Amino acid sequence: MYREKGLLIVLSGPSGAGKSTVIGGLLKRRDDIRFSVSATTRDPRPGEEDGRDYYFRTREEFLRMIDKNAFLEYAEYVGNYYGTPAGPVDECLEAGYNVLLDIEVQGAAQVMERRPDAVSVFLCPPSLQELERRLRGRSTDSEEKIKGRLDKAVQEIGRMPTYNYTIINDVAEDAVRELDAIITAERCRTARKLYIISEGDFIS
Amino acid sequence: MYREKGLLIVLSGPSGAGKSTVIGGLLKRRDDIRFSVSATTRDPRPGEEDGRDYYFRTREEFLRMIDKNAFLEYAEYVGNYYGTPAGPVDECLEAGYNVLLDIEVQGAAQVMERRPDAVSVFLCPPSLQELERRLRGRSTDSEEKIKGRLDKAVQEIGRMPTYNYTIINDVAEDAVRELDAIITAERCRTARKLYIISEGDFIS
Repeated sequence: MYREKGLLIVLSGPSGAGKSTVIGGLLKRRDDIRFSVSATTRDPRPGEEDGRDYYFRTREEFLRMIDKNAFLEYAEYVGNYYGTPAGPVDECLEAGYNVLLDIEVQGAAQVMERRPDAVSVFLCPPSLQELERRLRGRSTDSEEKIKGRLDKAVQEIGRMPTYNYTIINDVAEDAVRELDAIITAERCRTARKLYIISEGDFIS
Repeated sequence: MYREKGLLIVLSGPSGAGKSTVIGGLLKRRDDIRFSVSATTRDPRPGEEDGRDYYFRTREEFLRMIDKNAFLEYAEYVGNYYGTPAGPVDECLEAGYNVLLDIEVQGAAQVMERRPDAVSVFLCPPSLQELERRLRGRSTDSEEKIKGRLDKAVQEIGRMPTYNYTIINDVAEDAVRELDAIITAERCRTARKLYIISEGDFIS
């Protein structure tokens, strides 16, 4: 019996688009989703476990992995490296699970370039005004910081055309339903179902 | 306020794949689906109404429509013409409805060629054996006729790779859910959502 491979799904969007809420809702609807564990060169914090929270690696190990092209994406941030190792992701996909990468816009661009088979989904707030309302509602950030985030969001929304799908996150429940539908639909792509010609004995 | 256009959906597959059941189930889940009315040169039967059951046209009218490229597909069958006029379909799409064409494999090929924007879905039985069981179960056709249908099905399944999506109709309920998801997902394609950049005031 043929086993269908899983989907590599890239979910991105500006801060305040509502990614966490949408992912939470998705997990209530599907049990075939897995997440990747990132690698990092930063020190483990108390309670963090290697392989569960992060793969903790030395700077030398991390750089060697970069050389071997072992990351779907990576970046340096405040003096430490962070990245998504390809190996565990591919193992999950082979086992038939859909792997969801919850990732910021620059990392998403790297994954899309390295993995044209990835299904990319941009989560977009319904309007700049609503995004501003959400950012103000959830933090006590300074006026300057909020303005900075809004500017960054507008820039990031300019990358929307490079994504396969765009979900406008007005009502979270609808956004969850749409993300769920995208995963179901993408698994129905004909290229993924051609095995039925031989499995179903339809050879002419 | 921008109004999203509907999708043109081509649903096809061999006789016995279960199209009618799946369409029936879809209509219970969505109220944004419309069907096209075919044009024909055959005479109306008692109770049939022009514009509801068919557009009844003379042979001359039909041939003129062919010349004007007014059909998404057409065919001659037992001395009469049958076809899908593009005009009413496009009006429905403009109004935001998804138009479902329930159509045999040859007509589907014509629509896909004329309308690369159409979303094509192939409904495939799970196996030749199961298809045979279904065809025998629902008719008192002769052995020869059933063999003919199975041969035709195998030929038609050979066209599967030309479709965007393939739904393997093992359990009808799952097939309905998948068709529903394909429609929801296709409406989330980024190309259909770019209006949010201006509508949402995200212009940088």
